[in-house]
Formats: sequence, C-alpha cells, structure tokens
Amino acid sequence: MLVERPGIRIERIVSTGQTTPECQWYYQDTDEWVLVVKGAARLRIEGEEEERKLGEGDWIMIPAHCRHRVAWTDEERPTVWLAIHWRELRH
Amino acid sequence: MLVERPGIRIERIVSTGQTTPECQWYYQDTDEWVLVVKGAARLRIEGEEEERKLGEGDWIMIPAHCRHRVAWTDEERPTVWLAIHWRELRH
Repeated sequence: MLVERPGIRIERIVSTGQTTPECQWYYQDTDEWVLVVKGAARLRIEGEEEERKLGEGDWIMIPAHCRHRVAWTDEERPTVWLAIHWRELRH
Repeated sequence: MLVERPGIRIERIVSTGQTTPECQWYYQDTDEWVLVVKGAARLRIEGEEEERKLGEGDWIMIPAHCRHRVAWTDEERPTVWLAIHWRELRH
C-alpha cells in the first residue's frame, strides 16, 4: 500500500505468474485505474470477447461494478502494477 | 491527461530538463501523489532544507497547500511522471 486516504487508495502490486482463480472475478464498488509499470499481463473484462493485453506503460480504467479478472501474468519476470481505487465525488 | 473524473485527475507528464521557474511554486488545493516512472528529478518542498531526489520508482505525497517546485530534471533523457491529484472525501 503506497497511499490510503479518505476516498483513495494507491497500491503497488507485484505478480509473477499469478492469475485470478478460474471462475472468480474481482468486483468492487470503487472505480479503479491500473497501470502496468513493468512486465506484461492480460485482463479479462466481463462481457468482452477478447482479453486485454497490457504491456509496459499500458493502463486500463475499470469502472466500479465491472467484473474483471487477471487472465495471465508473465512467469519469467515480475509484473509491477500500480492500482488506484477511488470513490467518485457526488456533488 | 489519462483520467479525469469528479474528485480525481491522473496525468502523465514528460520532462526533459524542465524546472519550475526560479521563485515560482506550485500551490494546489488538491492532494497530489507523484511517481517518477522513468528518469530522475529533484523536488523542493517549501520549508525543507534539502531537495528531494527522486529516481525511477520513487514517489512523493504532496498534501494540498504545500508549496513545491521542480528543482531539476535530467536533461539527457526524458523523465516520465505519473501525477495523481484528488480531493479528500469529507464525510
């Protein structure tokens, strides 16, 4: 955990081949923005035909309540993620 | 600009030797979290004796209303920043 404040959480995550277990999905009530800082990964977004391929510097915005799973991460070298979760301000 | 939503802004910034002009400071009413993705930089935080040296993967949290300036960035190669600004949720 890099930063945790009211309304926001910034995390650094390192994967080395880990994936989300089959048939499991992440489901969150916060918006999420994820950057692959190093390495490579594939994400599956519920309802999308194709997996999203992410290389270094690629990012994806995952809205709250959008089910997603990590389909693949590189087993040869660490994949470093930066994940930012936040709650939208309601005015 | 990578993402802009109510309460949050995520920016990718590339510097090649740029600094904040002498005697000028950034002053913001949002909290900021900054990561040096590539390259190197030095930041000056108002009231601190020493400049903060930031290399690849280093980050700094700059609270709202904390004056700061970019004292130096590498002139030889691009410095890539990821800057996240957000407003704290008040409950």
